[in-house]
Amino acid sequence: MGYFDAASSAPLHPVARQALLASFDEGWADPARLYREGRRARMLLDAAREAAAEAVGCRADELVFTSSGSRAVHTGVAGALAGRRRVGRHLIVSAVEHSSVLHSAEAGGGSVTQVPVDRGGAVDPVAYGAALRADTALACLQSANHEVGTEQPVGAVAEVCREAGVPLLVDAAQSLGWGPVDGGWSLLTASAHKWGGPSGVGLLVVRKGVRFAAQGPVDERESGRAPGFENIPAIVAAAASLRAVRAEAAEEAVRLRELTDRIRARVPRLVSDVEVVGDPVRRLPGVVTFSCLYVDGEALLHELDREGFSVSSGSSCTSSTLTPSHVLRAMGVLSEGNVRVSLPLGTAEEDVERFLAVLPGAVSAVREKLGAPVASEVVREEDVLVIDSLGKRCPIPVIELAKVIGDVPVGGLVRVLSDDEAARLDIPAWCDMRGQEYVGAETAEKGTAYVVRRVS
Amino acid sequence: MGYFDAASSAPLHPVARQALLASFDEGWADPARLYREGRRARMLLDAAREAAAEAVGCRADELVFTSSGSRAVHTGVAGALAGRRRVGRHLIVSAVEHSSVLHSAEAGGGSVTQVPVDRGGAVDPVAYGAALRADTALACLQSANHEVGTEQPVGAVAEVCREAGVPLLVDAAQSLGWGPVDGGWSLLTASAHKWGGPSGVGLLVVRKGVRFAAQGPVDERESGRAPGFENIPAIVAAAASLRAVRAEAAEEAVRLRELTDRIRARVPRLVSDVEVVGDPVRRLPGVVTFSCLYVDGEALLHELDREGFSVSSGSSCTSSTLTPSHVLRAMGVLSEGNVRVSLPLGTAEEDVERFLAVLPGAVSAVREKLGAPVASEVVREEDVLVIDSLGKRCPIPVIELAKVIGDVPVGGLVRVLSDDEAARLDIPAWCDMRGQEYVGAETAEKGTAYVVRRVS
Repeated sequence: MGYFDAASSAPLHPVARQALLASFDEGWADPARLYREGRRARMLLDAAREAAAEAVGCRADELVFTSSGSRAVHTGVAGALAGRRRVGRHLIVSAVEHSSVLHSAEAGGGSVTQVPVDRGGAVDPVAYGAALRADTALACLQSANHEVGTEQPVGAVAEVCREAGVPLLVDAAQSLGWGPVDGGWSLLTASAHKWGGPSGVGLLVVRKGVRFAAQGPVDERESGRAPGFENIPAIVAAAASLRAVRAEAAEEAVRLRELTDRIRARVPRLVSDVEVVGDPVRRLPGVVTFSCLYVDGEALLHELDREGFSVSSGSSCTSSTLTPSHVLRAMGVLSEGNVRVSLPLGTAEEDVERFLAVLPGAVSAVREKLGAPVASEVVREEDVLVIDSLGKRCPIPVIELAKVIGDVPVGGLVRVLSDDEAARLDIPAWCDMRGQEYVGAETAEKGTAYVVRRVS
Repeated sequence: MGYFDAASSAPLHPVARQALLASFDEGWADPARLYREGRRARMLLDAAREAAAEAVGCRADELVFTSSGSRAVHTGVAGALAGRRRVGRHLIVSAVEHSSVLHSAEAGGGSVTQVPVDRGGAVDPVAYGAALRADTALACLQSANHEVGTEQPVGAVAEVCREAGVPLLVDAAQSLGWGPVDGGWSLLTASAHKWGGPSGVGLLVVRKGVRFAAQGPVDERESGRAPGFENIPAIVAAAASLRAVRAEAAEEAVRLRELTDRIRARVPRLVSDVEVVGDPVRRLPGVVTFSCLYVDGEALLHELDREGFSVSSGSSCTSSTLTPSHVLRAMGVLSEGNVRVSLPLGTAEEDVERFLAVLPGAVSAVREKLGAPVASEVVREEDVLVIDSLGKRCPIPVIELAKVIGDVPVGGLVRVLSDDEAARLDIPAWCDMRGQEYVGAETAEKGTAYVVRRVS
C-alpha cells in the first residue's frame, strides 16, 4: 500500500476498529439518562475521558470531546478570547498555523499578529515573546507543522507566555499520537483521525484556572463546551487507539525517522533541482516535504497516484486552492512542485524504496510535458529581456525565466511579467537555488514585474 | 428488552452497523484529496448525500452533513438569521421547540416571539401567522414534539410564512425516519441517531434561493456550512439506515401506533389520577406521555428501571434539570410524575404488556413512599386554610393540598405556600383534574401563595 498522506488522515487503527465494534452495543444511549443504558454509556464516556486525559497529561475534568479537531480549535480560540475580553482582543499566531487556527483568528474580530518563522519553519521564542502586548488575550502555536513536520519550541514559548500572563493554545493535531506536549500550555487541541482514531472526534483541553467562556449556543453536554449528542463509540475508539499508538510510538518513531531520513537524503540525488524543506532534525518522525523546480504539483500528484502512491501537495496548483501554501510562503522556500510524504504507522520499507524508485520518472514525465509551453513573447527592451508570462500559472513563469537567463549577458536583467501570486515566492527561490540575483518586484501595467540579474 | 426511550436515542439499526463496518476501509481518507483513497471517500460521501437528499425530498446540493442534530439547528438558525440581517432580527419559535432551537434563539440576540400551543401541544397556524412581522428574519417549527409526540401543522405554517416571505426552519429530528416533511419549508434539520443511525451525524438542508450566511469560522468542507473533517463512515451509515427505516416505516407505524394506543387507553384505567398528554391522533406512532399525580418523576424512573424499563421524564425532578419541562408548561398540563414512553422500531408487544403490568405497582410504590411526608404546618387564618410547603419539592405541595382539601367547607379556601416553580403548573392542573376551583397565585412573603377554592 502506497498511502503516504497520514498527516491528512490516518487509516483506522485496528484497536480503534475493535473499540468501535465493542461499543456500538453499549454506547448508543444518552449518557445523561439515569436508566441502565444511559449509565453504561456514561461509564464508557468517563473511562474514555480518563484514558485521553492520561495520554494528554491533564485532569479528566479539563478535557472535553468535540466533533473534530477543527471544531476543538474554533471552540478553544473563541472561548479563550471571550474569557479574556476585559484584557483585550489581541491574538498571536505563528505564520504557519493550520487553517482552522487562522480561520478562528479571522473570526475572532480582534487584531492578529503573525509571528514569522525561519527557513526551517520554526518560530523563534524571542520573536514570539516580542509580539506579546498588554492587550494580548491569547497566543496560539502548533506543536509541529502539518505541511513540513517541523517541531515548534512550545516549551520555550509557553514560558514567555506564562511570564506575560497570556494563555497559550497549542494545536497538537500532528503530534499527540507521538507523545504528550510538554511545557506550561493553557489550552490544547487535537484530532483523533490523525492518530488512527475514527473521524468525528476532537479533543479540547482547558487547564483549570484558564478563563474560558464558550461562545454560541451551548447545552449541558461536555461541560457546556461541545453541544450536541456525544458520539460515544467514536470517543471510546479515539481514546483506545491513542493508548495503542502511544504504546508503539517510541519504536515506530525510530523506524519512520530512518525511512524519512532516507527520503531526505536520496531525493536530491535522484531528482535534479529539488529543495527538501523543513527542519532536518527537529521534526515529526513520519513527515518529509520537498519541492521540485519546473514541476506542477497537481500533475506530479497524478503521476504518483498512477504509480500507486498517495501524497499531498502544498503547491499552488492543488484542486482545493489556487494560492500557494501559506506555510511554504512564510518559510520563504520554493513552493512549486511541492510534495509532502507523511508515512502512516507500519509503513513498509519496501514501499518507501518503491516510491524512491518511481519518483524520478514521475518528475521527468511532468517536466517533459511542461517543457514545451506555448512560447512566451520575449522582447528586448533596451538592456532588459522581458518575458510576458501573464495568464500563465506556476511553474511556467519560472520555466520561462530559466530558459532565457542564458540569453542575457552576465550583469544583464530579465523582467518576468506574471499575474500568478506563486511567482512572488518561486522566482526569488529559483534565484536562490541558481545563484542568480533577485532584484525585486514592481507593479506593472498588468500583474507584477519580477526583476532578476544574471550573476553567473 | 425494555428500552422505551427511542426519542432520546435509538439503538443502532443493523443496516447502520453493516454500513459502518463496510465503510471503515473505504471512507477514512480526506475526500478533498485527488488520490485513489480520497476519490473513494468522495464517492461514498456523494452517494450518501444523494440518498439522504432523496429521503428528505431535496436536491443533493441543498443538503450538508453536520456533526449532530443540535449542530445542524445551531448552524441553520444562525446562518438564516445572518442571511436576512437586512430585513431584521426578529425570530419566531413555537413554545415547545427542542432546547437546541431555544438556545439558538437566545444566542441569536434579536427579539424572539414564542407562539403558544394548545393543551394537545400543537400551534395554531393562524396564531403563528399573527406573530409574523415586517422585521421577522426567520420562523422555526418542529415537525413533531420530542416530549409528547404531537405533530405540528407544518404545511399550513409554511404557507403563511411563504406568503409573508419569511423562511421557515423545520426541526424534523423526531419525524424524519417516518417520512419526508411536506410543505414549503425553507430549511430543515435532523439527527441520525434518532432513526437508528450512528451518533455524530446531523443533516442541514437549505433550499436554493434561501439567503444563508454561515457564521463563525468555516472551511471548504460541506459547502462552507459544516467545518471539520467529514465523518464519512458515520455519514454512510446514517444515509443507509434512513433508507432502511423508511422501507419499514409504513408497516411499523401501524404496529407501534396500536401499541401506544394501548398504553394511552389502559394507563388511566390501571393507575389512578393520571393525565395522558399530547394529541391523541395527530402524533408520532411510537410516543406516548402521561403524568401521575402525587408522584416524583425521578423516583418513578428508578422504580421502572429496577423493573427493566428505560423511559424518560419531563418532570421537574429529573437529574439534569431542576425546572419542569418547558413543553408541559406551555401545554398547561400536569408535569408531576411525568413519563415519556417512546418505542424503538421492532418493540415487541409482550414488552409493552409487561410494562403495563408493572406500571401500577411502580406508581404505588412511589406514592407510598411520598404518602408520609413530614407534616406541613397547617394554620387556619380566618376562613383560609394555609399550608406551608416552602422548601418542599414537587409533588409534595400537591399531595398536601389533596390531603387537606376535605378539611375546609365547600366554598372555603386553601392557600398553599410554595417556592417550587412546578407548583405553578401542577396546582392548577390538579384543580382541573379534581373539579376544584383554582383562584390564582399571589406573591407571598416567601415564595408564592396558590389559592384554591373547594367546590365539591
